[in-house]
Amino acid sequence: MEQEKYTQLWLNYKNAEGNGGIQDVEIRGFSPENRVIKSAVCELKDGVSKKLAVAITQDITVLREGYCLEGSNDRVEIKASDEKGVLYGAFALIRALSCGRNAETLSEKASPSNPLRMMNHWDNMDGSIERGYSGNSFFFANDDMIIDDRTRDYARLMASIGINGIVINNVNVKGTATYLITDRFFDKVKELSDIFADYGISLYLSLNFASPIELGGLDSCDPLDESVISWWKDKIKEVYNRLPGFGGFLVKADSEGRPGPFTYGRTQADGANMLADIIKTYGGIIIWRCFVYNCTQDWRDRKTDRARAGYDYFKPQDGYYHDNVILQIKNGPMDFQIREPISPLLGGLTRTNQMLEVQIAQEYTGHQIDLCYLIPLFKEVLGFHTYSGEEKDTVADYVSGRTMGNALGGMAAVINTGNDMNWTGNDLAAANLYGFGRLAYDTDLTAEQIAREWIAQTFGLDREHEDILADMLLRSREIYEKYTCPLGIGWMVYPGTHYGPSIDGYEYSRWGTYHRADHLGIGVDRSDKGTGYAQQYYEKNAVMYNDPEKCPEELLLFFHHIPYTWKLKTGKSLIQHIYDSHFEGYEETEGLADAWKKLKDVIPEDAFERVSERFKLQLENAREWRDQVNSYFYRKSGIEDEKSRMIY
Amino acid sequence: MEQEKYTQLWLNYKNAEGNGGIQDVEIRGFSPENRVIKSAVCELKDGVSKKLAVAITQDITVLREGYCLEGSNDRVEIKASDEKGVLYGAFALIRALSCGRNAETLSEKASPSNPLRMMNHWDNMDGSIERGYSGNSFFFANDDMIIDDRTRDYARLMASIGINGIVINNVNVKGTATYLITDRFFDKVKELSDIFADYGISLYLSLNFASPIELGGLDSCDPLDESVISWWKDKIKEVYNRLPGFGGFLVKADSEGRPGPFTYGRTQADGANMLADIIKTYGGIIIWRCFVYNCTQDWRDRKTDRARAGYDYFKPQDGYYHDNVILQIKNGPMDFQIREPISPLLGGLTRTNQMLEVQIAQEYTGHQIDLCYLIPLFKEVLGFHTYSGEEKDTVADYVSGRTMGNALGGMAAVINTGNDMNWTGNDLAAANLYGFGRLAYDTDLTAEQIAREWIAQTFGLDREHEDILADMLLRSREIYEKYTCPLGIGWMVYPGTHYGPSIDGYEYSRWGTYHRADHLGIGVDRSDKGTGYAQQYYEKNAVMYNDPEKCPEELLLFFHHIPYTWKLKTGKSLIQHIYDSHFEGYEETEGLADAWKKLKDVIPEDAFERVSERFKLQLENAREWRDQVNSYFYRKSGIEDEKSRMIY
Repeated sequence: MEQEKYTQLWLNYKNAEGNGGIQDVEIRGFSPENRVIKSAVCELKDGVSKKLAVAITQDITVLREGYCLEGSNDRVEIKASDEKGVLYGAFALIRALSCGRNAETLSEKASPSNPLRMMNHWDNMDGSIERGYSGNSFFFANDDMIIDDRTRDYARLMASIGINGIVINNVNVKGTATYLITDRFFDKVKELSDIFADYGISLYLSLNFASPIELGGLDSCDPLDESVISWWKDKIKEVYNRLPGFGGFLVKADSEGRPGPFTYGRTQADGANMLADIIKTYGGIIIWRCFVYNCTQDWRDRKTDRARAGYDYFKPQDGYYHDNVILQIKNGPMDFQIREPISPLLGGLTRTNQMLEVQIAQEYTGHQIDLCYLIPLFKEVLGFHTYSGEEKDTVADYVSGRTMGNALGGMAAVINTGNDMNWTGNDLAAANLYGFGRLAYDTDLTAEQIAREWIAQTFGLDREHEDILADMLLRSREIYEKYTCPLGIGWMVYPGTHYGPSIDGYEYSRWGTYHRADHLGIGVDRSDKGTGYAQQYYEKNAVMYNDPEKCPEELLLFFHHIPYTWKLKTGKSLIQHIYDSHFEGYEETEGLADAWKKLKDVIPEDAFERVSERFKLQLENAREWRDQVNSYFYRKSGIEDEKSRMIY
Repeated sequence: MEQEKYTQLWLNYKNAEGNGGIQDVEIRGFSPENRVIKSAVCELKDGVSKKLAVAITQDITVLREGYCLEGSNDRVEIKASDEKGVLYGAFALIRALSCGRNAETLSEKASPSNPLRMMNHWDNMDGSIERGYSGNSFFFANDDMIIDDRTRDYARLMASIGINGIVINNVNVKGTATYLITDRFFDKVKELSDIFADYGISLYLSLNFASPIELGGLDSCDPLDESVISWWKDKIKEVYNRLPGFGGFLVKADSEGRPGPFTYGRTQADGANMLADIIKTYGGIIIWRCFVYNCTQDWRDRKTDRARAGYDYFKPQDGYYHDNVILQIKNGPMDFQIREPISPLLGGLTRTNQMLEVQIAQEYTGHQIDLCYLIPLFKEVLGFHTYSGEEKDTVADYVSGRTMGNALGGMAAVINTGNDMNWTGNDLAAANLYGFGRLAYDTDLTAEQIAREWIAQTFGLDREHEDILADMLLRSREIYEKYTCPLGIGWMVYPGTHYGPSIDGYEYSRWGTYHRADHLGIGVDRSDKGTGYAQQYYEKNAVMYNDPEKCPEELLLFFHHIPYTWKLKTGKSLIQHIYDSHFEGYEETEGLADAWKKLKDVIPEDAFERVSERFKLQLENAREWRDQVNSYFYRKSGIEDEKSRMIY
């Protein structure tokens, strides 16, 4: 048997017993020739092995992109008001059967929590992936595009979890990628977007804000310059002529060396609105990243606070952005650390479309070597009460549009895929890929529900083994947090790679990312006596974060500079907590690795071995973290471990 | 006027007033057709502007490669026993005149202190230079060799300072460089070696010890394997057929990932002697680097000591190396730090040819951005008394062969050149290039003599300005030391780049390079209570280094772990010394930059601007060192600066 080039992840229909369960699908209301309906029918025929009659029925009472499944006597009816709803319903049926549900008693109704559910690829056209840990790009190589069988399977996988928008290229747009909106690549982008369209996915591109200069030969990209505007009008018209159904542009401007409106003394709103006004004619949107901060900070400076930068800049512009602009806001104010507070921009903006950006590429969370199931983190973010005074005041409410009644919003993930045969390097990291999509579609799902769905479809384990793996996933984020940076401080990694411990790695750098540890204590004072960052929250949260006694302890060092002798609620001193949590984190990592061994006989051998190799590396990594963090703080504080364990 | 592609450094004959001072040269005893004699005559005609009669006379009483200059009535006689002596005499005459000496009263006699005076290029065949700070290679580009006008000028420059051997390629021999000893490159290497030969310089190559595998298709490079030996016999025969006059090979084996005898359970002597026995027939030599250590150390391990590695390995093999092998030994036991003790192998070996290796490429000493005149450091090394019990017991005595009466020995420098138009990036770094050669030829020259010679020939300054620049050079090493790592501890740099402060950069690494700072003190205990490294010296030095009260304070932290409150001989505490020296170091750097400004009108404008730019960077660098080092130790010790200066 030929070795497969890549796995089908949770759409592993080969595991089904023979397929062919569905002979024909009755379609009512929809055109059987519609590309998305055809995809849905195809999936049903491939993915259902049980003898089953299936009907697809248009029902305009079902919400947009939602579906109803109703089962009875070997028959299931999928109802939806639109074609995407049908496709999602088809995948839901396949999922339900894979998870062992009974078709005859199926009664499931769902509609997306978020209008936009997006994946952001940081793929470069040379084939590399910025912060990629799963091989190279499957979209690009050698400054050209790749379109092959895998492209379609990728689209199927994304549709199966409800993704409806994909940005295919890195937000740092340079070199060849600038030419994705030119004749050089239009044909191939069109081919790709057609494949996406078959699965209800809009293709988006990251944009080089300096395109008028680099492509147009203008001497400016000032968003208020008439020749620049005129250039963009022509260019966007051309884009839509060549790419009907194109979703729009994602823009990283004026950040980390990228060009933007600031060069010309303009606001981010000036830049975003200019593009948005032009693209609106074609139904497109502009997604504008809020990742603007001073990346040439002086470590000596204790007043400037990178955490403040997003809110300080964008809050005064609230209401200035036109209605087809969405601000894409990272979950925390810094940059995807294992523990950060929720960005105060989320819900802090009350008159601006907003989208939550999370990262399933494990940049700071273990490079897909260390196991770190991130759905619990995302659940915390979504469930965070802003206490804005609105009835619907959680982050989930704001980004979904529920609070403000706006149509545009949602969730985006920096994706964790590459051309590794298992897509995500670590087979278990696929749980984050799956989980993000499912959560974006239905934010009420629990992290455990999602984990079990993923396990059932991927490995089809019995309950006992599913419990083991679900438990590993659910505990993994807390374990990673324990052996890495204590209590929300973050950043103790190598600049550049963002892996492995380097306690002072960022301490004397220009990135605004400091822990300020000295012989007495550690942490950044972001209270009203410090940088004042805590005051960016609505009052109830501001009061809580401002006071070290009230501040949630997992964020204590993010908000306060705390003496090593400070007593935590457990009665432990801060320093003892650091020691204990790091010893525990390593021991619990050993526990994860041991638990995995119990699955040896129920996981396919190749996957089992791949993950086992990762656990070996994770153990080494956790040991380095434990010993370096403990040694660092022991050498600084001079305070002995109460339990006299080995600290170097 | 056409812009010159590169400068002539100290052979700047254009500065001479018109040249043509010498019409003809009378030659007695030597063949006027000899290639080296012809070069000497050519230099004399180009380089002497004063009307002068010059005679070259063979005198077999002059020592090998030595010369006598005797001046009288507009006539100078150059006497030598061999052609190289003539060439060096010719350059000496040009130098004397450039330095303002009177030809008529010239009476100078010199002969080389060291038989071998070598430059080691770490140039790669793709044109990059490992640890190069002056552009790319002028020998290699795009996996090919470059031979042009610059090649000859380079050879002239090297001959003018007495260099008689040059290794053209990086000691880490990989890829294309392995093929330098094959037909692919023989013609070009021959062409290059002919140019070198015109100037009395032997060409050497770094060798890939795995050549029998990579070139020969054997499955081993075991030095005791008959097929390997046979392969080398054929190969070296071929090399000498194609490259008559070839000097020999430099080998880095079993170090930092390079292959070597250890792979086959053989000794370094096995490897070196095998090659040496073969090459001896042709008059060649094998230079074997002693840079063997465990580069995968565990930072937790306080017993293993990288400083010990060289002596521990090579001392027991003393006497095992054949007489055309030279062990090339770095000046310190670690790796070219701004302050290290002298390697105990130097003079510790008493029955082995040895060569001192220093580095003028400023890898750890400021990347040719920071001014760091290294001749004072080399003088310390050469003048170091080993107290071996021999009458001639300094390092200079040992490496010159004076102590043991051996014929092979000398000095090698990792060179600081590249294809920058000024050769050394920083124009002032050429003082190290010049100085190394002069010092290797005459180890009795003082650092100041060398500095003044270089200034006179390069810039021709009046006494007042020469004093300023000489003072800058002579103080620069001490200043660099002050603002960087305190008291011999070293290594507080970024791994990888080896520039800029990163106090803990190597602290938790695998490189064996730790400072062991904690809340009470800093330093590595290498006494008999610690790693025992101090015991590798002869008794008098061992006793001195072993005792923190007797240990020279500039090396205190290299040999001992010392509390911050330890009183130094100045009466200052260690911590106060750290603060004071770092504040002073920065202030003195400002002094250097200010002194340079005084030379604005006497230094060519382009050179003045280039150096001024470097001082700007050096000031930024010194400020980072000062603030990061001081903050690091303040945060760790909690001890206030007595003078209450700003520490962060």
